[in-house]
Amino acid sequence: MSQIDTIKNAVEGIMDNCNNNDLLSKKRKGNLPSRNEIIHLIKLFRKIFFPGYFDDARTSICTEYYIGENLAKAYSIMYTQTLLAFMYEAGENTDEAVVEKQVEEICKRIFKKIPYIQQMLMKDVEAGFVGDPAAKSKEEVIFSYPCLLAISVYRIAHELYVENVPFIPRIMTEYAHSKTGIDINSGATIGEYFFIDHGTGVVIGETTTIGNNVKLYQGVTLGALSTKGGQSLANVKRHPTIEDNVTIYANSTILGGQTTIGHDSVLAGNTFITESIPPFTKVSAKTPELRLKGKMSEQ
Amino acid sequence: MSQIDTIKNAVEGIMDNCNNNDLLSKKRKGNLPSRNEIIHLIKLFRKIFFPGYFDDARTSICTEYYIGENLAKAYSIMYTQTLLAFMYEAGENTDEAVVEKQVEEICKRIFKKIPYIQQMLMKDVEAGFVGDPAAKSKEEVIFSYPCLLAISVYRIAHELYVENVPFIPRIMTEYAHSKTGIDINSGATIGEYFFIDHGTGVVIGETTTIGNNVKLYQGVTLGALSTKGGQSLANVKRHPTIEDNVTIYANSTILGGQTTIGHDSVLAGNTFITESIPPFTKVSAKTPELRLKGKMSEQ
Amino acid sequence: MSQIDTIKNAVEGIMDNCNNNDLLSKKRKGNLPSRNEIIHLIKLFRKIFFPGYFDDARTSICTEYYIGENLAKAYSIMYTQTLLAFMYEAGENTDEAVVEKQVEEICKRIFKKIPYIQQMLMKDVEAGFVGDPAAKSKEEVIFSYPCLLAISVYRIAHELYVENVPFIPRIMTEYAHSKTGIDINSGATIGEYFFIDHGTGVVIGETTTIGNNVKLYQGVTLGALSTKGGQSLANVKRHPTIEDNVTIYANSTILGGQTTIGHDSVLAGNTFITESIPPFTKVSAKTPELRLKGKMSEQ
Amino acid sequence: MSQIDTIKNAVEGIMDNCNNNDLLSKKRKGNLPSRNEIIHLIKLFRKIFFPGYFDDARTSICTEYYIGENLAKAYSIMYTQTLLAFMYEAGENTDEAVVEKQVEEICKRIFKKIPYIQQMLMKDVEAGFVGDPAAKSKEEVIFSYPCLLAISVYRIAHELYVENVPFIPRIMTEYAHSKTGIDINSGATIGEYFFIDHGTGVVIGETTTIGNNVKLYQGVTLGALSTKGGQSLANVKRHPTIEDNVTIYANSTILGGQTTIGHDSVLAGNTFITESIPPFTKVSAKTPELRLKGKMSEQ
Amino acid sequence: MSQIDTIKNAVEGIMDNCNNNDLLSKKRKGNLPSRNEIIHLIKLFRKIFFPGYFDDARTSICTEYYIGENLAKAYSIMYTQTLLAFMYEAGENTDEAVVEKQVEEICKRIFKKIPYIQQMLMKDVEAGFVGDPAAKSKEEVIFSYPCLLAISVYRIAHELYVENVPFIPRIMTEYAHSKTGIDINSGATIGEYFFIDHGTGVVIGETTTIGNNVKLYQGVTLGALSTKGGQSLANVKRHPTIEDNVTIYANSTILGGQTTIGHDSVLAGNTFITESIPPFTKVSAKTPELRLKGKMSEQ
Amino acid sequence: MSQIDTIKNAVEGIMDNCNNNDLLSKKRKGNLPSRNEIIHLIKLFRKIFFPGYFDDARTSICTEYYIGENLAKAYSIMYTQTLLAFMYEAGENTDEAVVEKQVEEICKRIFKKIPYIQQMLMKDVEAGFVGDPAAKSKEEVIFSYPCLLAISVYRIAHELYVENVPFIPRIMTEYAHSKTGIDINSGATIGEYFFIDHGTGVVIGETTTIGNNVKLYQGVTLGALSTKGGQSLANVKRHPTIEDNVTIYANSTILGGQTTIGHDSVLAGNTFITESIPPFTKVSAKTPELRLKGKMSEQ
Repeated sequence: MSQIDTIKNAVEGIMDNCNNNDLLSKKRKGNLPSRNEIIHLIKLFRKIFFPGYFDDARTSICTEYYIGENLAKAYSIMYTQTLLAFMYEAGENTDEAVVEKQVEEICKRIFKKIPYIQQMLMKDVEAGFVGDPAAKSKEEVIFSYPCLLAISVYRIAHELYVENVPFIPRIMTEYAHSKTGIDINSGATIGEYFFIDHGTGVVIGETTTIGNNVKLYQGVTLGALSTKGGQSLANVKRHPTIEDNVTIYANSTILGGQTTIGHDSVLAGNTFITESIPPFTKVSAKTPELRLKGKMSEQ
Repeated sequence: MSQIDTIKNAVEGIMDNCNNNDLLSKKRKGNLPSRNEIIHLIKLFRKIFFPGYFDDARTSICTEYYIGENLAKAYSIMYTQTLLAFMYEAGENTDEAVVEKQVEEICKRIFKKIPYIQQMLMKDVEAGFVGDPAAKSKEEVIFSYPCLLAISVYRIAHELYVENVPFIPRIMTEYAHSKTGIDINSGATIGEYFFIDHGTGVVIGETTTIGNNVKLYQGVTLGALSTKGGQSLANVKRHPTIEDNVTIYANSTILGGQTTIGHDSVLAGNTFITESIPPFTKVSAKTPELRLKGKMSEQ
Repeated sequence: MSQIDTIKNAVEGIMDNCNNNDLLSKKRKGNLPSRNEIIHLIKLFRKIFFPGYFDDARTSICTEYYIGENLAKAYSIMYTQTLLAFMYEAGENTDEAVVEKQVEEICKRIFKKIPYIQQMLMKDVEAGFVGDPAAKSKEEVIFSYPCLLAISVYRIAHELYVENVPFIPRIMTEYAHSKTGIDINSGATIGEYFFIDHGTGVVIGETTTIGNNVKLYQGVTLGALSTKGGQSLANVKRHPTIEDNVTIYANSTILGGQTTIGHDSVLAGNTFITESIPPFTKVSAKTPELRLKGKMSEQ
Repeated sequence: MSQIDTIKNAVEGIMDNCNNNDLLSKKRKGNLPSRNEIIHLIKLFRKIFFPGYFDDARTSICTEYYIGENLAKAYSIMYTQTLLAFMYEAGENTDEAVVEKQVEEICKRIFKKIPYIQQMLMKDVEAGFVGDPAAKSKEEVIFSYPCLLAISVYRIAHELYVENVPFIPRIMTEYAHSKTGIDINSGATIGEYFFIDHGTGVVIGETTTIGNNVKLYQGVTLGALSTKGGQSLANVKRHPTIEDNVTIYANSTILGGQTTIGHDSVLAGNTFITESIPPFTKVSAKTPELRLKGKMSEQ
Repeated sequence: MSQIDTIKNAVEGIMDNCNNNDLLSKKRKGNLPSRNEIIHLIKLFRKIFFPGYFDDARTSICTEYYIGENLAKAYSIMYTQTLLAFMYEAGENTDEAVVEKQVEEICKRIFKKIPYIQQMLMKDVEAGFVGDPAAKSKEEVIFSYPCLLAISVYRIAHELYVENVPFIPRIMTEYAHSKTGIDINSGATIGEYFFIDHGTGVVIGETTTIGNNVKLYQGVTLGALSTKGGQSLANVKRHPTIEDNVTIYANSTILGGQTTIGHDSVLAGNTFITESIPPFTKVSAKTPELRLKGKMSEQ
Repeated sequence: MSQIDTIKNAVEGIMDNCNNNDLLSKKRKGNLPSRNEIIHLIKLFRKIFFPGYFDDARTSICTEYYIGENLAKAYSIMYTQTLLAFMYEAGENTDEAVVEKQVEEICKRIFKKIPYIQQMLMKDVEAGFVGDPAAKSKEEVIFSYPCLLAISVYRIAHELYVENVPFIPRIMTEYAHSKTGIDINSGATIGEYFFIDHGTGVVIGETTTIGNNVKLYQGVTLGALSTKGGQSLANVKRHPTIEDNVTIYANSTILGGQTTIGHDSVLAGNTFITESIPPFTKVSAKTPELRLKGKMSEQ
């Protein structure tokens, strides 16, 4: 079989698959939101929240022009992509004018909160600097700490989640997940002065609630006890509640929608918790005895 | 010492190193495959498997032209890079015509499987949607779930691994590893309806076998008991077997080539398993007792 | 409220925030180093250390021209960004000529070590190949192993850390962290023949010391016991010491500045260690008994 | 005055201008067609007409997939930009559905002619090769002759002109003008086997008619006698008619809507013609006598 | 001789040349202005003057943010490049602070004129539309007429010329020359409502003066009688004066610093003028009689 | 007819054309040289000839590394593209090894001349500066004079022409033609200290010979008397000879292979010459009498 026939056969196979699968066969192109545009939106918000830190700096002063132009671009992308997302979900017989109106209201409500979100993020920067002896400056936190990227994206994506925008909140947080190893579902509720150190492997589930002044380390899971129920569990509170002033050290796992970690508690690393903990508690895993199996030379 | 001398000295040092090390001194340029081209190949396959989802959509309908053109590009890159990889490995005195013929056969065999791989991936999408209460739609799974990227890349890389293509399978899966935190060795064998939730920190070793309907969570390691043997262990079955319908929750570790998790079992989070488990078993780690060390205020 | 007013209000809110926060209000632009330039510097060093592996190869032979031109570019970026970093930190009333002189000396000292760093990295490649049965060749290690990226970046960033360069070492190592899931603080001290397998979730703290021939697996934390002291702990030895010839398997946690893992020891996976271990010791966690909760069908 | 005030004043001045000028004040953004997209469309057509000549060739064979995918992209851009152009011209109270229908019909009519246009262009290539002793091959003509670019663009733009599409035909031909120095108005009518040698400075006006087998040289103007009438002359035949088999050498000027150059005529360089010339005529300018002003040394 | 020796020899030859030629041997890098940056500056000004016409439009309304941000970027580039240009010209022993002050004043003076320049350009658009029967709309003139690009660039470059900025005015106008074939020296003085139709081959010399409402066609030269004097003629008035309301048709040549074309005159195409023409004159070249050399068939 | 059918029909028409035309039907892809690569080669040579002038300057000093690396890249592209060009021309049954050897020899011969070509170009810069009162500095000539680009490209392309390399010389000079409006055929022979002022519209034919110290102005044609013979005239001397120290002013036309302009002559603008001129001659066209047609107000 020649190369061209090889390709031809593969095309036919793919086309058969597409014709037999609604996910592939629909006219997708005009309709699906664009992942690239949504990533572009994230980058615009980083510039808006932290002017000067993520630019090839050409303008000499951070001005209202800089902020305004980036906000205008962000508005335009958010509006367009949100409209695409709702229209795709709604299907062909939807009245576009109605959806446009709805999307416009959503964008306006979110934009109203943007200065407030920036204030939240500056508190997160503060928490990061104060809580990490390895932090040399707050600028370093903004520039390079993965948690700042993850939280910045989460705080914007959360607003879209609250407005029931399809696809986009998840595309946003998975972008941050890819860059940082920190997976915060946009449905979670997270208070002020939040900090995650190192962060790789952190999972914060959709129905998690986190208070103020909470600090997490790498590998912490705030998860569900079981997902066996699958889609039947959608919208059920499945993930824990973490009250104010809690610190959870590395690789600890807290599971379950009824599990609450009381305020001002400290959980040592590697704890595995499926029941609630009262406030002001210090928890450490009774770590398994180590077995010293004798000198290596004996092996 | 002037700046130019500083650089000159560094150049001389580097050149000395290169002349003393076969890995650096060979005429590398014409020969080594190109990492960038291989990443481009991955992106082409994503477009082929999920037409419309990863495009800046300009064409208005997903047609055989779209599929065919992307397949033709993919064929060309796969052929060229595979040829480079084999020729580099074979060394200078190889008969290129023989290798060209061999590579052509490999590419044809792989392309024959592409529609089948797409079917597999659509089943993985199904598994992801059904198994995750946080999934709002199957489109969301395709768009943004890291496991979909990891599995898509694995399923293609595995075909190259089976054909003993040097370098490329590993470059492919490490690309996915970098983007998702999920490290699936291309040598592993993985069945249908496979899903990994969150995924960061998952490791699936080279000689792992996984059945159908298996679900993993973040931080799961399917690894070797020891690698002390180093290269002497190459090609030995070192990683576990996971039978059909098994769920393994977060941060569990299953080690060893003789370890089999029997079908229809569920392993809770944080289990550490080095011996086989019979079918239909529910396993949970007897988690270490927590020590509640008293109120924080007492500290 | 119209769209334009929505944006205008957001601009005003952001401008208020900026005017009330030193981190945002300063004329940042001319001064802050550029993250993009620093990432470009990392890429140049990869080309210098591993000529031909990360190029779209057009030149036909790896020559002193290739090395020299890339070194000259690297010097220029390192000089410029280091100067920006010091000047920003020093503030407006600094004598730039003094800082320029200082930065020039720093760059020269670092460039003198570059051939030596390359030798170190080739030993790391050797360690990676010898220690991993899944490694097909040393080229594969260079091309695709995440640890090689993480270590290459660490070894350069460490030299800048030693010279007290602000911002840049952290931006560098967090770039590698983002790409690999391996978080090595540039302050750590790491010996020869170092290898990390898989790597996702590895954390190596700022005051860690690691000897020669050490091998780590994914999820290993070399961390601090507590960071409650925050900035008051800066510059205190908070992270462990790992002596020569130690292997630490996946997801183990070693904490504390006084904790030393004696040479020629092996720590199994999932160990949790906060006290020192003598040399030649084999440690395994007495893993929690598994509870086999009966057949799944009984659920 | 500070820098920021300088900018602020300039902004105010510009905003005043914009508010006082309809061309600047309208909401232009959503509406104006995009010059970049139109240039992209031109490049797609070049690939379609001359497959393989203007690609970074990755696919190994020119297939229907290549042609089809590029045509589908071209269709999409042509439809979108043409719709934007008509909607902008029509103003806000237009029924978009009506215009969409109209634009769809236009695109379909034009696409029906595309294979015919390609045949025309291959004849132009033939004319270029046969007519120029300096042409080494027909491939060279396709690759590099400026007239081929100019004619390719003209032949497509002409179809849009005929359909009264606003803006786009002119943007297209001015792109070619910029690249080649050949300014063919899309309104001109040009027959088969057309060739322009060198081409810089050629002007072919909107109401020009050119027969088959016509050859022009650089600097030839086929223009209007006077444009004093300005817009009142719009749609009047103002430019000459050139019948079949005419050659016009460099820098000749033919003016006037009533001027016809009869078939099978040859006009030497530097002729200036404002009246008709019968068929089979050979015309040369009685060039001004040269004045040899004596030896240079006498100056 | 091997390939590497071939290159080595070429390097040596080039280095010898560089060492023997001041233009090549100086430390050029830090000092020369950047052609790319200057082209970027031109593009910014096009966006500022014609908001929306040269954008991939994402922002939904042309606002002061858009104008302000682009002006701020333009200011930054103009300042930086102008400083580089003056410092390079002044040589190493110059007091940079003095030059910085001077450059700041220059930039401020030019920015003060920007709204006025925009007004001038809108008049040029008007002239282009009114004067060309082929113009379908004023938008078309802005979008695609080469004279608009040439004049826009000239009007900015002229301000830099007036301030004696080295290099940059010429780089600017040659950029426009390259794109349009219209070569306007930035030293020329040009009034309002200026229009050039087609434009290829137009040359307007450094000391030309042009009044209001002047219209030129392609190939018109406003040049010097002789340049035999070379650099000794620098700063001498060498090019003609064109008074108000003059039209000069295609390929006419007007030479000499003492030559004035009186107001309200019309020069037909192909005239060659080296002496002054009084106002209200209509000039046509007594075109050379054509010689009709008989029927082509007689050849 | 639906849109998809419209495209399908167009594809079929195009495929029919391709199958019926050798220029389109051959497997073009692997074989044709790449226009983009050839343009990249031109840009490399500009950097080599004028180090620092066309860079985004990052390296701080022009060193042998800079020159060597750019030369090595240039060698690689020239070798690859020249090989492609010869192999395409030779057809399928050619012995590639023989052609490779031939191409290697060609590249070596050309590279040997590169330092000499640079010297020639520096003389052209000198001629440009000395001959143009508007030139403010030699740097300005290098940076922005179109003739410098045209001559640089010509001098390299000429070497490839002399070696009978197919396609590439023409692609090179047409690139320069597109950017400058100056069309120098790579077959022409041009001496030292060559300068073209303004340049738009200049044509220098394939068999032209030009001595030293020649200066041309815009619109000068050095052309053939007639091209009626078409391909039968290939390789015949068809274009004039211009001896040393000749100046030819704007828009003059010199035609014919037997026409020689004697040394030290000056041709005024708009002359039209088809016969030889003795040395030391000053020629001006007896310009046609102007007809002053009376006051404009009388019209």
